[in-house]
Amino acid sequence: MTRPVSPYAERQLPIHRRIPKAARAHFRVGADEPTAGWAPGHTQANLIAVPADWAYDMLLFCQRNPKPCPVLDVTEAGSWRTRLAPGADLRTDLPRYRVWQNGELTDEPAEATGWWRDDLVAFLIGCSFTFEAALSAAGVPMRHLEQDRNVPMYLTDRPCRSAGRLHGRMVVSMRPVPPEKLSTAIRESALLPAVHGSPVHCGDPSVLGIEDLDRPDFGDPVDIRPDEIPVFWGCGVTPQAAVMESRPPFALTHAPGRMLITDVRDDTYRVI
Amino acid sequence: MTRPVSPYAERQLPIHRRIPKAARAHFRVGADEPTAGWAPGHTQANLIAVPADWAYDMLLFCQRNPKPCPVLDVTEAGSWRTRLAPGADLRTDLPRYRVWQNGELTDEPAEATGWWRDDLVAFLIGCSFTFEAALSAAGVPMRHLEQDRNVPMYLTDRPCRSAGRLHGRMVVSMRPVPPEKLSTAIRESALLPAVHGSPVHCGDPSVLGIEDLDRPDFGDPVDIRPDEIPVFWGCGVTPQAAVMESRPPFALTHAPGRMLITDVRDDTYRVI
Repeated sequence: MTRPVSPYAERQLPIHRRIPKAARAHFRVGADEPTAGWAPGHTQANLIAVPADWAYDMLLFCQRNPKPCPVLDVTEAGSWRTRLAPGADLRTDLPRYRVWQNGELTDEPAEATGWWRDDLVAFLIGCSFTFEAALSAAGVPMRHLEQDRNVPMYLTDRPCRSAGRLHGRMVVSMRPVPPEKLSTAIRESALLPAVHGSPVHCGDPSVLGIEDLDRPDFGDPVDIRPDEIPVFWGCGVTPQAAVMESRPPFALTHAPGRMLITDVRDDTYRVI
Repeated sequence: MTRPVSPYAERQLPIHRRIPKAARAHFRVGADEPTAGWAPGHTQANLIAVPADWAYDMLLFCQRNPKPCPVLDVTEAGSWRTRLAPGADLRTDLPRYRVWQNGELTDEPAEATGWWRDDLVAFLIGCSFTFEAALSAAGVPMRHLEQDRNVPMYLTDRPCRSAGRLHGRMVVSMRPVPPEKLSTAIRESALLPAVHGSPVHCGDPSVLGIEDLDRPDFGDPVDIRPDEIPVFWGCGVTPQAAVMESRPPFALTHAPGRMLITDVRDDTYRVI
């Protein structure tokens, strides 16, 4: 039985878990933790950086798959700066990175300075951790936070719309929701389309080709109570699945669940 | 004094003003009319087509300026087909086109087949005509429809975020709204971010650098009653302003107010 806690009691959080700039400094010196529940009220972002030659395909892939891949910012080629977090260094300020060569995961370094290239274009993509504060405030439980785990993520059998050389299947994150909180969870996330918006599916995981919720493809499993409905949102790990399937010569991403914490208040992205 | 009418009484509309496919066929054979109020309940789209060499800049320009330039579809280079309207021909099915060479308007043809190029990438961008049915149903007057005019559009002094070689100022459309309907107008449009979403400004036009509401830069002026508030939404003519300022060698667009009428139901784009 998990203990119901409010992960968003800000006063209980140390400064490096509360202030985006302090969190980034914490990760810059090597800390490696999933960022769910960090810096409540601030937007978190997925990272996918590809050579400029692949940038149009990636931007179009995101445009064609806005539920898993809502674009928050695109950098100039070679730049590690983003307007989402002035002063941040995209090469060092995430907890952990993944290096992809020809679609193979070849390294998972704590910082990516040595892997950065002059022709890299970085895409910062909305993350569902961003709407967790709003859902939690509205009474929707966040089981992975209660259990102090990374959110579970699954590779579905649902194909994304391809774009140029990029193709792949959608990745989703899952949170168990009590039936009486389902409409709240849908409404609150729907009002934030830039961070995945409303769920892509609620209920039977086999509809998405997911065989076993206890064995996520990324992140950690969480407890689901008998009455709860598994709710699935598009996930910004989707570009990594596209990298695996499409095999660009090089890509640099965050490690799943280990996001860029930005300075942007999450309600900036609320449509109303 | 304008007569209050419901422009969305579907039964009163002839088939070519009611059914998207019939509307497109009507324009294909040469009819030239603004499309506000046409095919109620269906999405309308702005067209901007540029050579493939400029496609990344254009897509990035749209990503960086989502209020005026929400992208609904991007075609493959050379294709005149869009998934928004299967069977439609982007070269012929809009009422009127504009041809731009080095940033100069050089032709305004009824159809663009002779201007199409193998390397053209067409961007279909959300149009505020799409939310007019929802606003009208919620009791917000649509003065330009009551007066049987094109919507008034203005070039503001507000710079867009530039992208590569593309830069320019934002264009807005304006509708006068009675104060008691303002929150309804904001809410109903906000729920449709893919067709410009909430207004960019309400009230004093000089804040946007607009000198005289009676002299729009595109479209027609409309009557504003003494108690009404001018409400300004991002407008998909913005890429044309960018073409004028940035001078790409070639671009093909719709003529302002003369849109592609798609088969997509407008509520497809409602976030909730």
